[in-house]
Amino acid sequence: MSEPTKFLLREEQIPTHWVNLLPDLPGDPLPPLHPGTKQPAGPDDLTPIFPMGLILQEVAQEPEVEIPEEVRQAYGLWRPTPLFRARRLEKALGTQTRIYYKYEGVSPAGSHKPNTAVPQAYENAKAGVKKLSTETGAGQWGSSLAFACSLFGLDCEVFMVGSSYDQKPYRRSMMQTWGATVHRSPSELTQSGKANAEHPTGSLGIAISEAVEVAAQDPDCNYSLGSVLNHVLLHQTVIGQEAILQMELAGDEPDVVIGCVGGGSNFAGLAFPFLRAGSKARFVAAEPAACPTLTRGVYSYDFGDTAGLTPLMPMYTLGHDFVPPPVHAGGLRYHGDSPIVCALVKQGLVEARAYKQNETFEAALRFARTEAILPAPEAAHAIRAVLEEAEAAKQAGEQRTILLNLSGHGHFDMSAYEAYLAGELEDPEFSEADMEAALERLPEAPAIA
Amino acid sequence: MSEPTKFLLREEQIPTHWVNLLPDLPGDPLPPLHPGTKQPAGPDDLTPIFPMGLILQEVAQEPEVEIPEEVRQAYGLWRPTPLFRARRLEKALGTQTRIYYKYEGVSPAGSHKPNTAVPQAYENAKAGVKKLSTETGAGQWGSSLAFACSLFGLDCEVFMVGSSYDQKPYRRSMMQTWGATVHRSPSELTQSGKANAEHPTGSLGIAISEAVEVAAQDPDCNYSLGSVLNHVLLHQTVIGQEAILQMELAGDEPDVVIGCVGGGSNFAGLAFPFLRAGSKARFVAAEPAACPTLTRGVYSYDFGDTAGLTPLMPMYTLGHDFVPPPVHAGGLRYHGDSPIVCALVKQGLVEARAYKQNETFEAALRFARTEAILPAPEAAHAIRAVLEEAEAAKQAGEQRTILLNLSGHGHFDMSAYEAYLAGELEDPEFSEADMEAALERLPEAPAIA
Repeated sequence: MSEPTKFLLREEQIPTHWVNLLPDLPGDPLPPLHPGTKQPAGPDDLTPIFPMGLILQEVAQEPEVEIPEEVRQAYGLWRPTPLFRARRLEKALGTQTRIYYKYEGVSPAGSHKPNTAVPQAYENAKAGVKKLSTETGAGQWGSSLAFACSLFGLDCEVFMVGSSYDQKPYRRSMMQTWGATVHRSPSELTQSGKANAEHPTGSLGIAISEAVEVAAQDPDCNYSLGSVLNHVLLHQTVIGQEAILQMELAGDEPDVVIGCVGGGSNFAGLAFPFLRAGSKARFVAAEPAACPTLTRGVYSYDFGDTAGLTPLMPMYTLGHDFVPPPVHAGGLRYHGDSPIVCALVKQGLVEARAYKQNETFEAALRFARTEAILPAPEAAHAIRAVLEEAEAAKQAGEQRTILLNLSGHGHFDMSAYEAYLAGELEDPEFSEADMEAALERLPEAPAIA
Repeated sequence: MSEPTKFLLREEQIPTHWVNLLPDLPGDPLPPLHPGTKQPAGPDDLTPIFPMGLILQEVAQEPEVEIPEEVRQAYGLWRPTPLFRARRLEKALGTQTRIYYKYEGVSPAGSHKPNTAVPQAYENAKAGVKKLSTETGAGQWGSSLAFACSLFGLDCEVFMVGSSYDQKPYRRSMMQTWGATVHRSPSELTQSGKANAEHPTGSLGIAISEAVEVAAQDPDCNYSLGSVLNHVLLHQTVIGQEAILQMELAGDEPDVVIGCVGGGSNFAGLAFPFLRAGSKARFVAAEPAACPTLTRGVYSYDFGDTAGLTPLMPMYTLGHDFVPPPVHAGGLRYHGDSPIVCALVKQGLVEARAYKQNETFEAALRFARTEAILPAPEAAHAIRAVLEEAEAAKQAGEQRTILLNLSGHGHFDMSAYEAYLAGELEDPEFSEADMEAALERLPEAPAIA
C-alpha cells in the first residue's frame, strides 16, 4: 500500500505514564478554594467524595505519573487507538494541507471518556468504595463510567442531563446494559434536583450537584467527574502520547492541533503531550456558540456545579447557574472549563473559537461522506475548525499539517443527524442576558488576573 | 504487558486475495437455475442486475481472486480488524477454555458488511453504473452499501424490512447521512411491495424482490446483495485470512470456529480460509430458532426472494414466501442460506444450532459486562454457542480453543437491549404450519440429494 491511511501502535506501546502539565505552567497554579471558607482547598477537603489515590493525582507536582498495570491491562481492550490520515477529506477539500485524526471512538463506550473512567473506577475499587455516582451530558461519560464500574465490580448511579435523556434514550440503555442505574436530571431524588425543577432541560451543573450530593451522603459512595479536574486531564494524556509516536510513523509534525472543549479533557489529552514536548504547533479549542465559555466567559473563581457544592476553581465561566440552550453536543454544555486549559487560553497558548450547531453538523456530514466515520456532535465542532484551518491555509497559499482529536462517534446521536438532514436543526441563541445575570451571582472570591 | 488481550496486524497485511472455496467442494457445484426456464443460469442471465466483474467472481473456479488495489485502499479505512482474547469472559465463566473473537464491528457501518459492499460498489462504478438498489434487514447491510456508494460516487436506494425500519430508526438516519434513500418495505413503489401489503412487518425475501425489481427496470441501476451469493462470501474471506495470522501471533489454533448465519457471509468469511488451510477445527453455525433455516429447513432448489425474481439456488430453505417472526436479529431473518454454506452443512462439515431470542440476549449481556463490547443481536447467537461450547468443554474436562466471529456491534439495536432489560423481550414462535405451507409452494425444480 503506497499511501497508508492509518498508523497503528502495538499494545505494548500503550503509554506507561501520564503527562502532568501542572509543573510546566508559568507561575504557581491558582489553588481551588473551599466552597464555604473560600480558603485554599487541600487534599483533606476532597476525601468525602474522592479516594486518596485520585486526590494525590489531582495535586501531583511530578511531571509524570505512572499508570497502574491493572489500568494498562484494561486500556488494552481498545488502546492504542488508531491515527488516520484523512486522505479522502483532503481530496474532497482540494487542499494541499495534510489532515490527521486521532480516533478515540473505538473505545467500548465510543469516546475518549473511558481513558479516565477506568483509572477512576480502579482507584475507587482499590480504596474499598462500593459505588460511584456521576452526572452525564450526552451520555458518553456516563456510559464510560458504567463500563469501567462493570470491570472493577462497582455499582454506578448516573444523573443524566434532562435534554440528553430525552434526545438519547439508547445511551441510557447502554449504561443499563453495563449494569448502571440512570436518573433523569433534575430529579426528585436530591435537594439540588428539586431546587432546579424549573429547568426541566437540566444542565451539567445541576446534574453534578445531584451526583455530588448523593456521594456526600453515602459513605460507601464516591463521586466521579468526567472532565475539568486535573486528574481527569492527566488520564487523557495517553491520547497525545500515542499521537506523537503515530505522527512520527507518518513522518509528519502538526502545525495546528485541534480539539473540541466542553470541560477540556479530550482537548487536553491530545494537546498536553505536544506542549510538554515543545511542539511549535498552534492549539485550537472549539466550543459551541450556544455555550461559549472560553470565548465569552469571564476569568474568575466559580463553582463547578450549580448548587455550589464543589470547590471554587479559577476558570473562564458563564456563571455556575447559567443553563445553556439544549444543543445536541450535550458534552459541551458546561458553564466552566478545566482550570489548566483556561490558564493556557489566558496565557495565549491556546486559541478558542465558537461554532453554531448547524455549521458543525454540516462539517460532520462532510466528514462522514468522505472519511466514513459518523462523528459525535461534540467532535463535529473540532471538525468545523479543521475545515476553517484548511481553507485559511489554501487562501494563504500554505501547506499545513493539521491534527484533530476525533473524540467520539455519533452512533447515539442520530436523532440530531435526523433533525439536521430534515432541515429542522435549530441554532439556539446564547442568551447574553442570562449570562450577565448568572455572572452577577458569581461567588465572592479573590480576584484573579 | 504479560498477557496481551488483542492481536493486531499492520495495514500492509490486509490480504491481497480473496479465498474462493468453490473448487474445494467435493463434486461439481450445483448450478443456479434460471427462474423461468429452470435451466442452469449462466453469466448472461445475471447481466441485467450485476456487473460482469462480479458475475465473473460469482462463477470463478480459481482458488484465489485478486483484490483490486482501490478496494484494498478502502479496506484500509478500518482493516485489518482486531482479534481479541476474551480473558475477562473466560475468567467470569471459570473456564480453562481459551476464547478468541475477531471483531468486525470496527468498520464504519459497524459490521463485516462493508467487506463486500466496497468491492461491489467498486465493480459497479467501474462498469459505469450510476446507482445501486438493495434490501436491508437490521440495517447493517444497507448502511454498509450506503457508505460504499458514498466512497465511489454512486446513488444508493435501500428497501428496509418493515419490522427493522420501525425498531431501528437511527439506522435509517445513518444511511441518509451517507447519502442513501431509504424506503420501508413492503412499499407502494413496486409490484412486489404492493403484492405483500398484507405482511406489514416485511421480510428480507420481500425487500429483495423490491430492490431487484427496481434494478431490473432502470438501465443505470444495478442490484446489490449483502449475503448468500458466492461473490459476497468470497469478499468476506479477508476476515478469516487475517484471523489465521492473528491466531499465529497468539500462538494458538482453534478447535472450534463459530459464527452466526443469516445468509451465511460472516460465518463463511471466517470459516472458509480455515477450511482451505485444512484446519482440524469443528465449524458451528448459529441461527435463530425463529428462522431455523439450517436446522429445520429442507434442502432444495428455491428462489432467493419472495416474488421469485432471482435464480433458483440449491440451499436449505423454509420456503421463499415464509415470513419469519420479527425478532431483533433482522439480519438473520432469511428463508434460505448461502448455497456453499448449505452444501457444507449437508456434507457434515459444518454443524448448525438454533437459539431463542432471550437466551441470545442473555449471552450478549454476559459478553458486554465482561468484554465491554455491546454485540449486535445477530452476533449474540454466535456468543450463545460459544458459552455452550465452553460449558461442554468444562463438563468434558477439556481445554478447548474457541474462535468467534463477533460480526458487529449493537449500537443501533439498543431498543432490543432495552426490551430485554425490561423483561419485555419475546421469544416469538417459529410457525411450523407456516413453513409447511411455504414449502408446499416451492418452485418445481430438479430434486437434489
